[in-house]
Amino acid sequence: MSQNIIYLDNNATTRVDEKVVEAMLPYFTEEYGNPSSIYDLAHVANTAVRKSREIIKDFLGANDAKEIIFTSCGSESASTAIKGTIELNRAKKHLITTKVEHPCVLNLHKELEKQGYKVDYIGVDSNGDLDITELISKVDKDTALVSVMYANNETGAIFPVEEIAQKVKEINPETKIFVDAVQAAGKIPINVKDTKIDFMGISAHKFHGPKGIGALYVKSGTMVAPLIIGGHQEKGKRAGTENVPYIVGMAKAAELAMENMEDELTRVKCLRDTLEEEILSKIKNARLNSTSKNRVPNTTNIGFLYIEGELILLHLNDAGICASSGSACTSGSLEPSHVLRAMGVPFTSLHGSIRFSLSRYTTEEDINYVVQELPHIIDKLAKISPFQKELGEILNK
Amino acid sequence: MSQNIIYLDNNATTRVDEKVVEAMLPYFTEEYGNPSSIYDLAHVANTAVRKSREIIKDFLGANDAKEIIFTSCGSESASTAIKGTIELNRAKKHLITTKVEHPCVLNLHKELEKQGYKVDYIGVDSNGDLDITELISKVDKDTALVSVMYANNETGAIFPVEEIAQKVKEINPETKIFVDAVQAAGKIPINVKDTKIDFMGISAHKFHGPKGIGALYVKSGTMVAPLIIGGHQEKGKRAGTENVPYIVGMAKAAELAMENMEDELTRVKCLRDTLEEEILSKIKNARLNSTSKNRVPNTTNIGFLYIEGELILLHLNDAGICASSGSACTSGSLEPSHVLRAMGVPFTSLHGSIRFSLSRYTTEEDINYVVQELPHIIDKLAKISPFQKELGEILNK
Repeated sequence: MSQNIIYLDNNATTRVDEKVVEAMLPYFTEEYGNPSSIYDLAHVANTAVRKSREIIKDFLGANDAKEIIFTSCGSESASTAIKGTIELNRAKKHLITTKVEHPCVLNLHKELEKQGYKVDYIGVDSNGDLDITELISKVDKDTALVSVMYANNETGAIFPVEEIAQKVKEINPETKIFVDAVQAAGKIPINVKDTKIDFMGISAHKFHGPKGIGALYVKSGTMVAPLIIGGHQEKGKRAGTENVPYIVGMAKAAELAMENMEDELTRVKCLRDTLEEEILSKIKNARLNSTSKNRVPNTTNIGFLYIEGELILLHLNDAGICASSGSACTSGSLEPSHVLRAMGVPFTSLHGSIRFSLSRYTTEEDINYVVQELPHIIDKLAKISPFQKELGEILNK
Repeated sequence: MSQNIIYLDNNATTRVDEKVVEAMLPYFTEEYGNPSSIYDLAHVANTAVRKSREIIKDFLGANDAKEIIFTSCGSESASTAIKGTIELNRAKKHLITTKVEHPCVLNLHKELEKQGYKVDYIGVDSNGDLDITELISKVDKDTALVSVMYANNETGAIFPVEEIAQKVKEINPETKIFVDAVQAAGKIPINVKDTKIDFMGISAHKFHGPKGIGALYVKSGTMVAPLIIGGHQEKGKRAGTENVPYIVGMAKAAELAMENMEDELTRVKCLRDTLEEEILSKIKNARLNSTSKNRVPNTTNIGFLYIEGELILLHLNDAGICASSGSACTSGSLEPSHVLRAMGVPFTSLHGSIRFSLSRYTTEEDINYVVQELPHIIDKLAKISPFQKELGEILNK
């Protein structure tokens, strides 16, 4: 299946690196002890978890491995940070987040509104950049938590989370800061220790680790109520037998991401820029959705005026190319992307927007192939678009 | 490391079956699509999840695959069922559980008491059998949830959960029933569809699947609020990108457990019985902690009077034998087992109780070896016990 596939949907999930699989394998059938047990077999597992925690600490640039707790995914990290903060602070009823967060933050806030919380959702401009001034202006004595993503999954726009954390704490030092770094980790260097950020969530399957394992950074001294209650694991912050193979796998994936960071910031970025430029120059009804100067190096989001996005994706699939029209976590819904709507992308390209997200596996040949195939696909679909008049005006310019 | 190890701690965790690893492998590096995406690569992952759900449905004897949601572990299944029930039913403030539950149920109930819930903890007799009459007598109009484990992790005692569910519902049809079946699944046949049980949790790593994946059965028509909020996965009952490899792995492990059920109920049971009889006959200060007629076939829990359990375990470890003194999830604590205390096990053997839990990998040679080594270990430790007078009276009988 994966033979001859051009996979450009790495913000949805990634191929697990062979070295990650290799690192995990012994922990299934050989070193399978429960890290909490006292015999040597368990000690091996325990040591593996301890070493992995050190690596994730370095990956996030944290101070201390004790600040890292292992979770089962980015969504669990977010639910733990958000629910775990307000549970310890029931008196404060104000929350701030953005209009463009991942559903694991956005839908949770909508749920909390039903429970009596007042939530301010901060908007973005047409580039996808956050209105920081508006965000800071909303902070008051009653603000329990500010949740802002590090990089947007659909546009790749990077938000200045360090600056936001600093400014929020200047107004209210009690306010906690959660950063969903799921789309930043592995794509840009992270250094949380010099920031005022309290919580940071990541997910291994976005950087060539397995699906079903994540981590939550909790700054020393910051309290959080556990989401999953039970045994003493993760210092009481997350019960459940440790997923030793995946913890080892996530650590290996983090190591590889650190090694490949330079490639990501140069070669991958260059391929992304080429893809973007070629599409925009070859396809007349193509528009770049986020022109933010500050984007993760692997992502581009391009609107094709008057063309239906799902049809583009199906034709790309026929050509062996995987891409997406938004977050995988919101697919199945016919609603256009909440991120693009928040950016004010006009309806003419809102339904025809495609996200291409590259990875270190992406080659020049892949990009050349997409640049070669896509114009034919858009051409074909333009012919059957119900907006012939409007399209004609653009294409015949 | 696992070479030459006699692993008799299968209630803590199990070795992953090679066939389970084989089944998972393609989903890491080849069929790595996000099941929510729309291209063919994702369709393969989606289909794998759908088929796995059917297998887990059969494993639990459920009516419909829609009743199965995938979680990250037994503790998450328990937290989801318990928190997810009371969240939808804030008016009812009474809960019932047992004194011998796993920490994922017990500690959560202790937390809920702090939040204003009234909890009745039902006791067990000296065999480890539950006092059902007491349990039923506690059910009233205000009872939101009854949580009872299927089989106890320390003694192996099986509780009549079907009968309990039936009788609870006769008194209050609105009361929900959660069954922690983590220690039953794979050891005895389960058939939830003919019962009044609303929720049933399992964990793959207790039946030769990987650590970090579990399932929660939610009876059709029973409502539950999600613990992890976010995307649309698991029909809105559990957000987070599906852990496709582990879901496939758990399904394979369930298939293998069904195939090996006969072996578990005959050969493994026979080995357990032999181990038990030989220890009790060869070691004069050994006492069987649970004499319940109704136990899972792989578990025995034996007290060694006036001997320190941790010392026994360390000597067993030196002999290459893995066993435990209680639940791995409570180890590290110096408190004696809450299960044995609830059974009224006298202090003379409370601190010297060892759980042996077998699996389909356990051989006759393994058991012979333990039966040969253990008497020497107990002998050696008896000589350094501070209770020479009391021990002398037993050993010289």
